[in-house]
Order: sequence, then C-alpha cells, then structure tokens
Amino acid sequence: MATATPAIDFWFTTGSTYTYLAVMRLPTVERETGIAFRWRPFHLRAILQEMNHVPFADKPAKEAYMWRDLERRAGLRGVPAPRVPAPYPVRNLALSDRLAVLGVREGWGPEFVRAAYRRWFGLGQEMGGEPNVSDSLREAGQDPARVLALAEGDEIGRALKAETAAARGLGLFGSPSFVVGREVFWGDDRLEDAISWLRHSAVQRP
Amino acid sequence: MATATPAIDFWFTTGSTYTYLAVMRLPTVERETGIAFRWRPFHLRAILQEMNHVPFADKPAKEAYMWRDLERRAGLRGVPAPRVPAPYPVRNLALSDRLAVLGVREGWGPEFVRAAYRRWFGLGQEMGGEPNVSDSLREAGQDPARVLALAEGDEIGRALKAETAAARGLGLFGSPSFVVGREVFWGDDRLEDAISWLRHSAVQRP
Repeated sequence: MATATPAIDFWFTTGSTYTYLAVMRLPTVERETGIAFRWRPFHLRAILQEMNHVPFADKPAKEAYMWRDLERRAGLRGVPAPRVPAPYPVRNLALSDRLAVLGVREGWGPEFVRAAYRRWFGLGQEMGGEPNVSDSLREAGQDPARVLALAEGDEIGRALKAETAAARGLGLFGSPSFVVGREVFWGDDRLEDAISWLRHSAVQRP
Repeated sequence: MATATPAIDFWFTTGSTYTYLAVMRLPTVERETGIAFRWRPFHLRAILQEMNHVPFADKPAKEAYMWRDLERRAGLRGVPAPRVPAPYPVRNLALSDRLAVLGVREGWGPEFVRAAYRRWFGLGQEMGGEPNVSDSLREAGQDPARVLALAEGDEIGRALKAETAAARGLGLFGSPSFVVGREVFWGDDRLEDAISWLRHSAVQRP
C-alpha cells in the first residue's frame, strides 16, 4: 500500500469496567473515522500494584458513582445497557489478559474480548471465569482446550509481561488508554481527544 | 417569576486542578444554555481524608498525565492555556474554600474564584497563598482585611462544614461535581452529561 492507514494504539486490560464502553463502540468508530485501532492488552493490575493503587477498593461512594456513570454513558455511546454492578473486581484477570494477548496475536482477539465483555456486563458472568471464558472463546471460533493451554504457557506469559513493560514505559496507569505517538489519552471519554490529536496534533472540537 | 430558571448545582473545592476548566468556562456555558449554576464550595479534602485518598500523591505518572490532559483540554474548552504544572497540592486550601463560601454568600464568589484560578494557572501563584488571595479579592472588588477576618471566623467555618456534610450526603468525592436532583456528574468532562440530564433525564448526544 502506498499510504498507511492512520492508527491509534488501544491499550487495555480485560478487568477494567469503563473499557466495556470502548471495546463495544470501537467497530463503529473505526467504520466512521477510517482509523485503525491496534489492540494492546496489558496487565494493568501489575502497574497499579506497584503504584499501591487499587481503583474503587474501600471507596464505596466512588465505586457506586462509577457504575452509575457507566450505565448512563452506555446510552451516549450507543452500546448495550450494562447490568450494573457487574461482578467486580475480576479475580482471574491474569487469564483473560493472557487470552487477549493470544487472541490479538492469532487474529480473534477483538471478537473474543467483545464476547467476554458482553457476557460480563450483559449476563453478569465474571470476566476470566467460567462459563464466560469458554463460551466467549467458542463464540470467537476457538477451541477452549487448545487456546487455554497456549494462553497459560510461558510464551504468552512473557508476551503479556513485555506489553506491560511497554505500557509502564509510556506512563500508563489506567484502561482504556489511547496512545498517538507519545501522547496518552486515558479513558473512554478521551477517545475523541485521541482522534483529534491524530488528525490535528491538537485536542479540538470536531 | 412564573418560571424558575433551570439550575445545576456546581460543587467544587478551590484546591482542584480540573476545576480550573469548569470555573473558566461556566460563564460561556450559562450564556449559551440559559442554565444557572449554583456555586457550592465544599471542603473536599476532608472527605478525601476520610476515604484515605489523596489524588496524585505518590503517583507521578498519574500526576504528569493530569497536567498534560488539563493543558490539552484548555484549548478544547476555550479557556486560557494553563502554565503547568502549577503549584500543587495547595497548602492553605481551607482558607480559599472559606473565602469561596463567604464570596458566594455575599455575591462576589464566582468573580473571586475565577480571579484566583487565573493567578494560580496563569501566573503560578498558589491558590490560598499570597499574593493570590489579596489580589484576587481586590479584583473582585473586596477589601482583603474585612473579608479575611470574616472568612476565618466561626460562622464561615460552620457554613463550610455544613456544605461539606451535604456533599458527603450526596456521595461526592471529587471536584468539580455537577448535581441535578440526586444525579451526580463528576468532572469537567461530565458537564455536558449534566446538562443533558437536566433537559432530557438522560445522557445523550446534543
């Protein structure tokens, strides 16, 4: 190709609640803008633990607000209304992050992640747990036995660790984060800012 | 008057960085929407201390991001570009919150708060410190000696405490927060959501 498709790095962890809004609306955004999003799963929890930061833990007012905000914003973003609160925090997050890494590598990552978020926020099935994992893999056309064996292996563990190190290097501390060059935009509510930056090197009104 | 002006409660503390965006753009928003904003200063720091939460403290990546985000968003909001990082955290925040309470009561609150934010983010003069406090009071047409004596008195202390209790009752944990009935919208980036809620009882595209 003569011209590269403009692209934004979409960094995320599968344990993040607000990331639901981003994963569900990205197909529409890609279609409407012609921008490609490179899915970059990373293990945010490792970074937050280093920061001694656990979002919402022991902060009931803030957690209650987050669910309400997410619920209200789903309408704004045109994504299915979430059943809130969904099971949170996610216990086996390392597994779903590993599956996302493997899926992105093999090409079924976005489909799997969206299926898993739909089950988490639509059916109340915890991300990273059963039956969410196996059903979402099957929906993405994958054999759970094959994929789980790979995802739990050393190679994917190393790949997730490398991506997490890259995220740390960019100064990421939340999910979703959109990165254009070295410019970081944190939160589904900054997606439009990232698009503006890609187009104009400035955050401006559309 | 036969019809009440539609109104949104604008809860804030003078120590908040993102509140700069809100205080600077509210006059334009009021003019464009016909909505009145009721300024409700409260002592957020007391609530955050109860939550054992100090925004950005010991979180250098998150603080660096906050300054960059604020800088980028000033353009989006049409407010003067801030000199970042501004002095932070604010040390004598209790004083500037008390002054805001007194100013709202006497009618010069918004003008004082905007003047103080302009000095904090435009000239690098810390909020709540000198010369910011006296110069901002004079800009708002007030005599610093008279006003400081009142602001440091028991009555304003009790008023600030009562407003902080009301904020706690609403579940507030950040500044700015916009409240429509019992519906809370946290952050300058949720102001449009609050306006939408006031008009449509839903968060939707304008």
